[in-house]
Amino acid sequence: MMKKPYHELSREQLQELHEQLLKDYENAKDRGLNLDMSRGKPSISQLDMGMGIFDVLNSESDMKSSMEKVDVRNYGAPDGLMEAKQMMADIMGVSADHVIVCGNASLNIMYDTVSRSMTQGVMGSTPWCKLDRVKFLCPSPGYDRHFGITEYFGIEMIPVPMTPQGPDMDIVEKLVAEDAGIKGIWCVPKYSNPQGYSYSDETVRRFAALRPAAEDFRIFWDNAYVVHHLYEDRQEEILEMLSECGKAGNPDMVYEFASTSKISFAGAGISAIAASKGNLDFIRKSMAIQTIGFDKVNQLRHVRYFKNFEGIKAHMRKHAAILRPKFEAVQEVLERELEGLEIGTWTKPNGGYFISFDALDGCAKAIVEKCKEAGVILTGAGATYPYGRDPKDSNIRIAPSFPTPEEMAMATDLFVLCVKLVSVEKLLGM
Amino acid sequence: MMKKPYHELSREQLQELHEQLLKDYENAKDRGLNLDMSRGKPSISQLDMGMGIFDVLNSESDMKSSMEKVDVRNYGAPDGLMEAKQMMADIMGVSADHVIVCGNASLNIMYDTVSRSMTQGVMGSTPWCKLDRVKFLCPSPGYDRHFGITEYFGIEMIPVPMTPQGPDMDIVEKLVAEDAGIKGIWCVPKYSNPQGYSYSDETVRRFAALRPAAEDFRIFWDNAYVVHHLYEDRQEEILEMLSECGKAGNPDMVYEFASTSKISFAGAGISAIAASKGNLDFIRKSMAIQTIGFDKVNQLRHVRYFKNFEGIKAHMRKHAAILRPKFEAVQEVLERELEGLEIGTWTKPNGGYFISFDALDGCAKAIVEKCKEAGVILTGAGATYPYGRDPKDSNIRIAPSFPTPEEMAMATDLFVLCVKLVSVEKLLGM
Repeated sequence: MMKKPYHELSREQLQELHEQLLKDYENAKDRGLNLDMSRGKPSISQLDMGMGIFDVLNSESDMKSSMEKVDVRNYGAPDGLMEAKQMMADIMGVSADHVIVCGNASLNIMYDTVSRSMTQGVMGSTPWCKLDRVKFLCPSPGYDRHFGITEYFGIEMIPVPMTPQGPDMDIVEKLVAEDAGIKGIWCVPKYSNPQGYSYSDETVRRFAALRPAAEDFRIFWDNAYVVHHLYEDRQEEILEMLSECGKAGNPDMVYEFASTSKISFAGAGISAIAASKGNLDFIRKSMAIQTIGFDKVNQLRHVRYFKNFEGIKAHMRKHAAILRPKFEAVQEVLERELEGLEIGTWTKPNGGYFISFDALDGCAKAIVEKCKEAGVILTGAGATYPYGRDPKDSNIRIAPSFPTPEEMAMATDLFVLCVKLVSVEKLLGM
Repeated sequence: MMKKPYHELSREQLQELHEQLLKDYENAKDRGLNLDMSRGKPSISQLDMGMGIFDVLNSESDMKSSMEKVDVRNYGAPDGLMEAKQMMADIMGVSADHVIVCGNASLNIMYDTVSRSMTQGVMGSTPWCKLDRVKFLCPSPGYDRHFGITEYFGIEMIPVPMTPQGPDMDIVEKLVAEDAGIKGIWCVPKYSNPQGYSYSDETVRRFAALRPAAEDFRIFWDNAYVVHHLYEDRQEEILEMLSECGKAGNPDMVYEFASTSKISFAGAGISAIAASKGNLDFIRKSMAIQTIGFDKVNQLRHVRYFKNFEGIKAHMRKHAAILRPKFEAVQEVLERELEGLEIGTWTKPNGGYFISFDALDGCAKAIVEKCKEAGVILTGAGATYPYGRDPKDSNIRIAPSFPTPEEMAMATDLFVLCVKLVSVEKLLGM
């Protein structure tokens, strides 16, 4: 095992190494792998674990909300069942009166929130579609579907560097204070996508204390991985944002999003938004136009199945037991094969769904391409940046959730081979 | 029983009648009714009838789409399960490749469709939010929630008179041909809300053959009551609009909407949009940003439960058996009490969820108010017109679905009493 950094190797050594890696790569291609680690999809074992949810309601069931006597099968309760609000509130650590429960995907709530701001403004502000320029800050690397929403609405995206403590707050503070065109920022504050970083207390407090030039500036706080710990003894917790904003005199500045997409089912969970009364009242006005109510039967099904926050946490411990070996398989191969070579760095998250890998500058696209040729699909290089443009072409998101641990090990074996091959080719100036 | 038209009564006769009606009304108030016939809500018996749907999926179930092998619990199939498309297509009488299946409410698809047109335009046209004026034609009386959507987006609404054959097509044809600011029209073509009228073949063909000045003009064809017949032997059918538009050279001019909200559950059904490939491709682009997929578990549940279109029709026959006596109870009271008095006319629908009542001009608000005082809630007067403004203040929507037939008879007894009382007061110039 060669542990000398690649950049210290002589040209001859690199050429020799290149020949060997090329041979290994051709052999790997012959193995005909067919693995997908591109998306944060729950695995079949995780999905199987939640099947009991389909037994809690049957033709003999009481179909009324126990807290409000609402018949969940009929119209009504457009902002969600009281008990579902309570469950989602407990997950987010807020009080139930700050929560609206919606349909099966929090992404849809985020889309609706941006869409509504475009046509209706924010709590009385000018609709964004009437403004010449609307901008969002995009901590990067970040979540491609966030960037997809803002791009779709023609919102200009400004990347902000990420650190292990969260976005670079010096930059965030400066930009939002100076530019009233900046209307929002995308955040995944806990076990971030793709790094698995959790924002430090200081970062959260600085967010809550922002003094934006735009009164309709909002923080889009996507707490997608709020209960998605991998390790019992290394659980990361962040400060609760809604109350921090309140304390800092900015009660209306944040929308928090969460869902059970990666708790119950990716396609059939329930989702929620938490915000101040002012924001929720404004949102309810548009919801009253948009729908006669979301699927309350599914809300009741979730509450009856999980019962409460303890039930959620117990379920997530079972998920962690499935996910952990996959993350560890990736880490094991990365460490064994790449440690010391100085051709890549990667994160070691304690939760969430992703590992972020940074290759040598200019190598990410080529690595993803080489993996694909040999049968392993990664998230497209660049996807973690606004407009799909990674300025250094170095970041790759690894999503270990769907394949088995054995498949993950195989896929990562191929991945590190491609990293080595592309890195050597770069160093050789090929 | 006085059967002479009120307007032929002498002032003395009217005064005498008024005294009697006032007494009756005071007595009615003392009875302390508490009935709601304001909304088209399915009754508990209807909801109970569909409870079997909660037994078709359980923890032992195969959770894969049989037509595409998609795991319905996971991400994927954003435009709907193949078998759900087929079922919704059969309901609408179109082919499955013209259908996208969405979440639990077609109202939400309509909202999204208008919202998307505002910010993204229609198949390449200028976004409506960038135009000075956007207008919709609103056949009236019509559905308040349709008008609510267009009002919310600041779209100017132009009422168009309704006839028993559908909207007045002379007016529709003239307006859309002349004014490129007119971008849409709301239609409930079958068992219309609130009249229960079904568009004649001529009306449908004239719609399909419209020559709008605006290339981004769309017909919003809300086929909400497509299988909602009250009588086996008086089923009304309308021409299938998508193919009529194709035949007339206007394949892209219509969006058709349908749902199972009033088939399975008002809060937990599935919904669909049918349109041309051009429209659907444009919609799919925004859906790919908006969501990672709607609730496919609920789609599968519906398909497994109803099986096919025959299953839907059989289920709807059971609904009809519940709804018919309620409609008949209303009709019976209206005929017995108001026939010949010339103080009101009403529709006698063969399907749908409503009866439309027209009082003497200037009486609707007062009638609704008097009913409310005595404990019977009707849809607000004016609600059936854009901006809630009924120019003649005469139309009242009656929604017989939720109360029992006995309650409906009681509520209608009060209603006719209020109609008489308010009419006499009008004739007396009070």
